[in-house]
Amino acid sequence: MTMLDASTNSLPDWLRRRAFSNPDRLAIICGDTQRTFSELDVDVDRAARWLASHEVVTGSRVAVHLPNSIAFVQLVHAISRLGAMLIPINLRLTGDEIGWQLGDVRADLLITGDLTAQLSAARDRLAPDTRAVVIDPHSPNFIGGASASPVFVESHATDEVHSIVYTSGTTGRPKGALLTYGNHWWSAIGSGLNLGTHVDDRWMAVLPLFHVGGLSILQRSVIYGITAVVHESFDPGRVNQSIDEDRVTIISVVSTMLRRMLAERGDAPYPEWLRCVLLGGGPAPEPLLRACESRDIPVTQTYGLTETASQLATLPPDEALLKLGSAGKPLYPNELEIEVDGQLAVRGLPGEIIVKGPIVTAGYFERPEETARAFEGGWFHTGDAGYLDDAGYLYVLDRRDDLIVSGGENVYPAEVEAVLMSHDDVTEAGVIGIPDEEWGQRVVAIITPRDDCSPDIAQLSEWCRRHIAAYKIPVDFAVQQNPLPRNAGGKLLRRELRRTWAPYPR
Amino acid sequence: MTMLDASTNSLPDWLRRRAFSNPDRLAIICGDTQRTFSELDVDVDRAARWLASHEVVTGSRVAVHLPNSIAFVQLVHAISRLGAMLIPINLRLTGDEIGWQLGDVRADLLITGDLTAQLSAARDRLAPDTRAVVIDPHSPNFIGGASASPVFVESHATDEVHSIVYTSGTTGRPKGALLTYGNHWWSAIGSGLNLGTHVDDRWMAVLPLFHVGGLSILQRSVIYGITAVVHESFDPGRVNQSIDEDRVTIISVVSTMLRRMLAERGDAPYPEWLRCVLLGGGPAPEPLLRACESRDIPVTQTYGLTETASQLATLPPDEALLKLGSAGKPLYPNELEIEVDGQLAVRGLPGEIIVKGPIVTAGYFERPEETARAFEGGWFHTGDAGYLDDAGYLYVLDRRDDLIVSGGENVYPAEVEAVLMSHDDVTEAGVIGIPDEEWGQRVVAIITPRDDCSPDIAQLSEWCRRHIAAYKIPVDFAVQQNPLPRNAGGKLLRRELRRTWAPYPR
Repeated sequence: MTMLDASTNSLPDWLRRRAFSNPDRLAIICGDTQRTFSELDVDVDRAARWLASHEVVTGSRVAVHLPNSIAFVQLVHAISRLGAMLIPINLRLTGDEIGWQLGDVRADLLITGDLTAQLSAARDRLAPDTRAVVIDPHSPNFIGGASASPVFVESHATDEVHSIVYTSGTTGRPKGALLTYGNHWWSAIGSGLNLGTHVDDRWMAVLPLFHVGGLSILQRSVIYGITAVVHESFDPGRVNQSIDEDRVTIISVVSTMLRRMLAERGDAPYPEWLRCVLLGGGPAPEPLLRACESRDIPVTQTYGLTETASQLATLPPDEALLKLGSAGKPLYPNELEIEVDGQLAVRGLPGEIIVKGPIVTAGYFERPEETARAFEGGWFHTGDAGYLDDAGYLYVLDRRDDLIVSGGENVYPAEVEAVLMSHDDVTEAGVIGIPDEEWGQRVVAIITPRDDCSPDIAQLSEWCRRHIAAYKIPVDFAVQQNPLPRNAGGKLLRRELRRTWAPYPR
Repeated sequence: MTMLDASTNSLPDWLRRRAFSNPDRLAIICGDTQRTFSELDVDVDRAARWLASHEVVTGSRVAVHLPNSIAFVQLVHAISRLGAMLIPINLRLTGDEIGWQLGDVRADLLITGDLTAQLSAARDRLAPDTRAVVIDPHSPNFIGGASASPVFVESHATDEVHSIVYTSGTTGRPKGALLTYGNHWWSAIGSGLNLGTHVDDRWMAVLPLFHVGGLSILQRSVIYGITAVVHESFDPGRVNQSIDEDRVTIISVVSTMLRRMLAERGDAPYPEWLRCVLLGGGPAPEPLLRACESRDIPVTQTYGLTETASQLATLPPDEALLKLGSAGKPLYPNELEIEVDGQLAVRGLPGEIIVKGPIVTAGYFERPEETARAFEGGWFHTGDAGYLDDAGYLYVLDRRDDLIVSGGENVYPAEVEAVLMSHDDVTEAGVIGIPDEEWGQRVVAIITPRDDCSPDIAQLSEWCRRHIAAYKIPVDFAVQQNPLPRNAGGKLLRRELRRTWAPYPR
């Protein structure tokens, strides 16, 4: 019956379109640099010409190894304007790891801010065709004289790959998740339909742009037409000051950041325009949520993955305090379920979190087997454990690989950690399973003490006894002064804890 | 390279999804009736079962001839839940016109609130298979005991037809514009990416729901998860009161409504939560815009069509006062151009407004030739005249069919009307062309005077001379006390004026 199809499987260049619709609106605040959408659009044209002079063409794979910076922002849009693919490189990787990743993705070009010994090691391992170029990421005019006249790509199919983002690697060898234009688009739309979008929103990107949690803020900026306030690194004082002075309305953080922000802020309230603190990177400790509640800080918990282009489930702002501890419901129009033994679980039963919908990765770069395994049965398997309550709210428990099985009982580390962290003497807690002849695994807790106090282990054990079942109570405790190991996204690396503490004597 | 396609050409039942995501949020305020999304969802299930008991199945065409009411709201969603098509019937049509439309669309069922003589005439002309049923539209439980157990449609392809809306008929015979789920979806998304969406938005639907300007508010309600505040009819006092008491944040109006609202309001300011007065239905008189400006009323002009599922171009809120008189830029991701003699016009040149994008109708119901003509060259031809300024902002001039050609010069009636309406003595002005032996057409103005004053024609003529070129100045003036003829969307019906005033003696 229809004459034409309105399904629209191609999307125009988001930045170009915003520069047309709202040329004079502020697109970026990054240190001392501010850019309207039309100014950024011009910058990005120049950056794209510069990339073309480095032989970047449609389909090229361009690795970006830079701190959060105005150059990073320009490159993200310039790479897409050429129809090339962005491969953001984690700044915390060793030279060996970078070399492996560049080889795995067969990068055509590496753009970096420095060539330290670490990166030199990586260059030695580059594929023969990978070129490298060093720039000053903090100059909006990081580009020299060289300039080509490429053809700009005016629109992108929703299934075209925008970026290949390597998973943070809490388990196994990193894999490159293919994120399409459709993934990024639906992620922004789904988030907007949940959190709302305000014409005067300013979203702070203090998470690394090489992670999807930071990168997705740049996409929302050009899709919504709002300002991204980019910080090079996390400094609680500067973040708090920026919320006040740059009129930040939304900020994406992980628990450790938020805790440090609150400590730095003291008793001073946050301004009323701060309408959403989006808290991701793992289950949030309840004391932190309670502290925010008592201080009227609008915290909204979220659960996301690289493979879902960031948020997958997020509490709506008007329920943030009603459902403390939950990561909410899946973003429109995605679906989320819990799988146990290959079957969809009934409500309340913990199992593996699985997801379906347009935000889900198109697969892992050149990993057909791992892709097929992840998508078994048509659902994407997150590898994370959780359950849905009766109303369909998600509660995230753990990385499935971190699950402890002790005497046949399942122990979810995050649950035990939350109990420990609710004790006054504890700042951080990591709970792992250690091989045990009698029980298969035994539960071990590693904690960092609050301030310089020396926690009483017997007291902590008693604290646990009051809150959780006996089989979940740590058999052993270890106290360390250094912060617990986390990835750049703020996720606790229990694998690292196991490596350090596995030989811990009984 | 991609393993799966994230383009998503199907969309889940919007209301069902909102009832899942935000069950306790208010969906509808309609008179004394209030419904949360979960309550509305239950109502709509019942309404769908009731429809099924009247033999409505997937693909059925269901005509709804009702005033704005809770029943209308339920039926819109219930019809789509069965995969049937909604045909909203204009309440101002005569029995003959209704009968013609029901026959043209081959309606399977007519739902109406009364069977007056007017409608009885329509029934006599119904196709043999059209059944009719009378309900009480103001009862949320308008449904009797009958109930079936139909299969509900859980998702819709973007190119599935949601509704067939007959064009308001300012020219020629009405045609049924096919509006797909994709049309409505992209309309809501494009509007949201321009105006922003706030979690606590409340959008007043005082425009008729049988027009796309009202109907689209119901779609935005379930897509954004916001409250629709439905008024049965326009009463300036009740509208003003509802803005205050129901905390309305957005209201869609036409100029005549807004003028009456301001008059009724007197000097009292509007509350700060009213963030957007979306003004459509034709070019807005500048004095009205100035009055709003001086009273801090956030008016945003829009230009829309039945064939584009409502708004096509709209000023962003932060530019509402900077670009007074413009209808803004096309909503994302649609494109808009001006065509002159089959070619895209340069900026500044007036011509026919043409449009392309996912909000554009799939075509006219069983009118292949008219559809083909409307889509010549791949663009949809609106039949309206306008121009784009250097920055790409649209200025709407007129219905193309209303264009007056006098002595070889083009005269756009709206321009002359705006000048006349800026005169203190004039409330409304309609300008038409009357056949003239010497000039082809001559310009004639019909005005309604402000209050009971008796306008001085010589003065009005002089007023025009100061503002517009001589060839545009009306040769003849007529004064009438009755309001000028308008369609339900508030658009001036110049065709009616011509019918009345064509024999007007020189």
